[in-house]
Amino acid sequence: MAGRLLDTIDAPSDLKPLTRRQLTQVAQEARDAIISVITERGGHLASNLGVVELTLALHRVFDSPTDRIVWDTTNQLYTHKLVTGRRDEFKDIRLEGGLSGFGEPRESPHDTLCAGHAGTGLSIALGVAQASASRGLDSWTIAIVGDGALTSGSSFEALNNIVHLNPEKLVVVLNDNGMSISENIGFLTNWRKRVITHPEYHAMIGRMRSLSKRVPTGEAIYRLVKRFRDGLDSFILPTTFWTEIGFQYLGPVDGHDFKQLEETLGQAKIPTGMVPLVHVVTHKGHGYEPAEDDPVRFHQPSSPLGDSTGAPTYSKVFAETVKRLMKDDESVVGISAAMLEGTGLAEVRSEFPNRVFDVGIAEQHAVSMAAGMASSGLTPFVSIYSTFLQRAFDQVIHDVCLQNLPVTLIADRAGIVGEDGKTHHGAFDISYLRCLPNAVVAAPMDENDLQHLIYTAYTHPGPFAIRIARGNATGAPLDKDLRELPLGKGSVVREGRDVVIFGLGKPAYAALEAAEKLADYGIDCGVVNPLFVKPLDVDLLLDAARSVGRIVTVEENVLSGGFGSAVLEALAEAGLEDVSVHRIGLPDSFIEHGTAAAQRHRLHLDAEGIAEQVRETFFPEATPQARRGVAA
Amino acid sequence: MAGRLLDTIDAPSDLKPLTRRQLTQVAQEARDAIISVITERGGHLASNLGVVELTLALHRVFDSPTDRIVWDTTNQLYTHKLVTGRRDEFKDIRLEGGLSGFGEPRESPHDTLCAGHAGTGLSIALGVAQASASRGLDSWTIAIVGDGALTSGSSFEALNNIVHLNPEKLVVVLNDNGMSISENIGFLTNWRKRVITHPEYHAMIGRMRSLSKRVPTGEAIYRLVKRFRDGLDSFILPTTFWTEIGFQYLGPVDGHDFKQLEETLGQAKIPTGMVPLVHVVTHKGHGYEPAEDDPVRFHQPSSPLGDSTGAPTYSKVFAETVKRLMKDDESVVGISAAMLEGTGLAEVRSEFPNRVFDVGIAEQHAVSMAAGMASSGLTPFVSIYSTFLQRAFDQVIHDVCLQNLPVTLIADRAGIVGEDGKTHHGAFDISYLRCLPNAVVAAPMDENDLQHLIYTAYTHPGPFAIRIARGNATGAPLDKDLRELPLGKGSVVREGRDVVIFGLGKPAYAALEAAEKLADYGIDCGVVNPLFVKPLDVDLLLDAARSVGRIVTVEENVLSGGFGSAVLEALAEAGLEDVSVHRIGLPDSFIEHGTAAAQRHRLHLDAEGIAEQVRETFFPEATPQARRGVAA
Repeated sequence: MAGRLLDTIDAPSDLKPLTRRQLTQVAQEARDAIISVITERGGHLASNLGVVELTLALHRVFDSPTDRIVWDTTNQLYTHKLVTGRRDEFKDIRLEGGLSGFGEPRESPHDTLCAGHAGTGLSIALGVAQASASRGLDSWTIAIVGDGALTSGSSFEALNNIVHLNPEKLVVVLNDNGMSISENIGFLTNWRKRVITHPEYHAMIGRMRSLSKRVPTGEAIYRLVKRFRDGLDSFILPTTFWTEIGFQYLGPVDGHDFKQLEETLGQAKIPTGMVPLVHVVTHKGHGYEPAEDDPVRFHQPSSPLGDSTGAPTYSKVFAETVKRLMKDDESVVGISAAMLEGTGLAEVRSEFPNRVFDVGIAEQHAVSMAAGMASSGLTPFVSIYSTFLQRAFDQVIHDVCLQNLPVTLIADRAGIVGEDGKTHHGAFDISYLRCLPNAVVAAPMDENDLQHLIYTAYTHPGPFAIRIARGNATGAPLDKDLRELPLGKGSVVREGRDVVIFGLGKPAYAALEAAEKLADYGIDCGVVNPLFVKPLDVDLLLDAARSVGRIVTVEENVLSGGFGSAVLEALAEAGLEDVSVHRIGLPDSFIEHGTAAAQRHRLHLDAEGIAEQVRETFFPEATPQARRGVAA
Repeated sequence: MAGRLLDTIDAPSDLKPLTRRQLTQVAQEARDAIISVITERGGHLASNLGVVELTLALHRVFDSPTDRIVWDTTNQLYTHKLVTGRRDEFKDIRLEGGLSGFGEPRESPHDTLCAGHAGTGLSIALGVAQASASRGLDSWTIAIVGDGALTSGSSFEALNNIVHLNPEKLVVVLNDNGMSISENIGFLTNWRKRVITHPEYHAMIGRMRSLSKRVPTGEAIYRLVKRFRDGLDSFILPTTFWTEIGFQYLGPVDGHDFKQLEETLGQAKIPTGMVPLVHVVTHKGHGYEPAEDDPVRFHQPSSPLGDSTGAPTYSKVFAETVKRLMKDDESVVGISAAMLEGTGLAEVRSEFPNRVFDVGIAEQHAVSMAAGMASSGLTPFVSIYSTFLQRAFDQVIHDVCLQNLPVTLIADRAGIVGEDGKTHHGAFDISYLRCLPNAVVAAPMDENDLQHLIYTAYTHPGPFAIRIARGNATGAPLDKDLRELPLGKGSVVREGRDVVIFGLGKPAYAALEAAEKLADYGIDCGVVNPLFVKPLDVDLLLDAARSVGRIVTVEENVLSGGFGSAVLEALAEAGLEDVSVHRIGLPDSFIEHGTAAAQRHRLHLDAEGIAEQVRETFFPEATPQARRGVAA
């Protein structure tokens, strides 16, 4: 096998002298590299395959890093990484110590920012462009935003301000893959429908058909055209919309055709007094049949490296329980923000199509709408990943807690998430939720806890937040009947006289395992499942504090303001002295990517790490009893 | 003087039999009542005067509370309150125990929700409408949203979803007063400009002119028309925009003309398969000359009941200091989200027009743009009220802290704010900011602290948040030269052997006063100005803990996860035992309106309350020494 052309590309400048034919080869090689690594490793596959040509074209037309390329949601940078000097490290992407799956300025000056939440790219790019202008730099800023991210309110705030400030050397590229993570919502989709029936659209189809006979990737284009007809795809917004709001609209461009891409991006450099918007039509999964056929599944195929225990995921148990509630009570509804599949609500919707709402990437709206529903007799369950719930913080405070409305928030993927890394850990929800008046905040140890918590939330007349971990639950058997749990009551899961670990949520299992290990050292360690962060089971805590005197808290949340902090507050309030508390949790830093197991190990959050910390803190003299037995 | 017609209106149904002439009288009487109370008491004047007729018309055309009227930002409900059975209580609006200045479901079934942050009304209304539909209720939901609130991303998320769900009995009313709190930003404004030069616009002016000769309020309409010409006003969005995105556009309607209002609102009830959007043109301050002429100032004239000490406000000192920095360093920029005046940045902009950015009601964008700027060599200072900064929480985490960028966030109006009440207190920022990695969080005791903190933030290479109180600073003299303060270093402002109060921010002054009061009881109380929440001055804390053993923390933030909680964490980490900590701060509930002084007194946060709590907690036996002296 001859050497890859890709192997000669050490920097974007190496792309510039290539012929289009060579470029097509590089694209194929990049695509192959991505497919081979990601199908094995897990990662964002479909979105990356969709932007191979767009990435290469951007690097030929512009001069990164002098020109600043800002991707909204930087999970599509695989090709970019391959051509910016990180080709050899690519095989270890998303692994501990390997490349990040997202942009990372520390990896390369070609990465502007590390962003994993959709909808901030346009704002960041406007800031970069303003900075370049005010520093008198002669450099372009290029923002690439997907159609899904456009449904996020922050994107609209940015579009509005871009038109207002109208900076000179900013280019907006709309990466229109005709599909956000789940589906497009609202008037953007309506526009698309209208365009499909529009004469210009048909004219364009004709143009593309004739084009398809002349270019190497013709077959792909023909399929593209066919898909338009099937209503699956593609032009979000007609020209007039963008022109109307003040952009110079350029396109639509076939995002897999280098000639069109390069010509149009080049055209964007010609000053017109308006910010150019280049409308690029791409296909998620392009060039990889399985991903083209099912881009939702291939949005992020899960890593086969994950620990599959056969137990259901917490998300699935949430969904199943909500489904049970829906059967008996018509007031129950489910709400997701572009994460129907991930939250389990897709399955619920298949049974109750009119009672599950997917609002798109619009967490703020999801929460406020739920508040409106709850104010009027519905019982909404809103499931949003912990990291994305941050986006709706003000709405949680203002529309849910302040109004004291019965909205249940599921903070899914709370705690450590693994390979997605620092942009996606659910590291803060305990701190930012437990400070809110009227809020109940709970975390189930296992799936049985979870189903009862959901029922308890269902019966509770106010705001109720439940944080659940990513991945498989513990395999605990599910009680047949749902029951209402007393608010703020935890339980002792293991008695112990020397020290008691309060393990919040799934980490209670690691605490149990740690207790076993400590027993080997002759340390009698109890374990408590607190279940509630707020209200806290103060009686249980004070009992343990008085009788044992040594308390350890374990949580997958930052320590600042977290569960352990709530324990300290309760002890201080009770005026208890002579109690030693050691808090174990996430550090005061952003946690890099790797497998969840590796992250827990590194952070001393697995059973071994917990046991070690308990020994070091309270029993530094303890030695393994078995070994001592042998020695004796 | 004959009895007011307004005094016969005990419920909205009493409005229905009135003639238009009588209605005009009620409008005048409502306007008079509002002007008389609010000019004395403080409150939202201009916006309320703008919606007198709109409110009355809504109540005639719809049947509240069966029909649900949802105002976005409920600070415009004064007329609504006057005609929904709260006429007599109106005189005590915004006072302790009096009516809220916002919507309040506990006051009346006619108030759907209590919302004080712009941009959530459409989402809430959609939720209410969905709930009504799914419960089979035959009731309308009417959302009223201002043009300013439309710049907020959450409004766009909602518009998008409204079009998608297309509920049957929802009406959107766009209250277009041609001006948000500061000014309109971006493409909405561009549209308006385009409409003003559009032939249809001129045709409409003609129509309105002829109309103005036929209706009683003709004079007002004529002024309205004239203002169009002056470019001050009014049509944000042309018909086509709303039709294009899928609404049934109705209007524009003169918002001070009952006939037009009632006819068009009635028309909105005729089903067309699309959600109607009624475009109502109103004037802030309508009918009160001073407010019409200067609606920015009369947006919310401040209450003369405030305690004016002659000291500058913290906001002003912030602005002055930023101006000093700007003079020496071109990289310094200021960013506000529709609060140029309130944050002091208006004054900075008058000197540096190109370096102060007002992005509109778009806090998310403000913070992300600042991150982009900071990533590219600018030094942004973003000033947002603490309560509104909640809206940008994810951006603070993700775009500022995760990237570790030198963005300075000023959380203005942090702590108790007084009459605006529970929607506006800055009650959570310490909890939600101190949990973030890379963040420095500080709170100045006085204005001299503040100017040095701003300089310190300016020199600091990462995220820096400064929380400042509403209102006047303390009158402390300002050092001539700005200097860099060591991070995480507080200072002892009063020595004491029995107990030490760590008073964060302005409350340190109350703590000093409390120490005086405690001295009368023979209690020797020290006071520390911690200055930083994060990093905390652990040395100073441990010194006090070891030497005194009794620590009191005072803060205007909720106790959960607040400054006192950080103190507990630090003590636990140090393994210190035998230290008693009593935390004083905001309760775990939303704080009702009233004057700031009354709120502080009620919450035991004034000097008296602090002294009392210290005595009760640590020195229950102490008695006034002077009295004891007399008795001896």
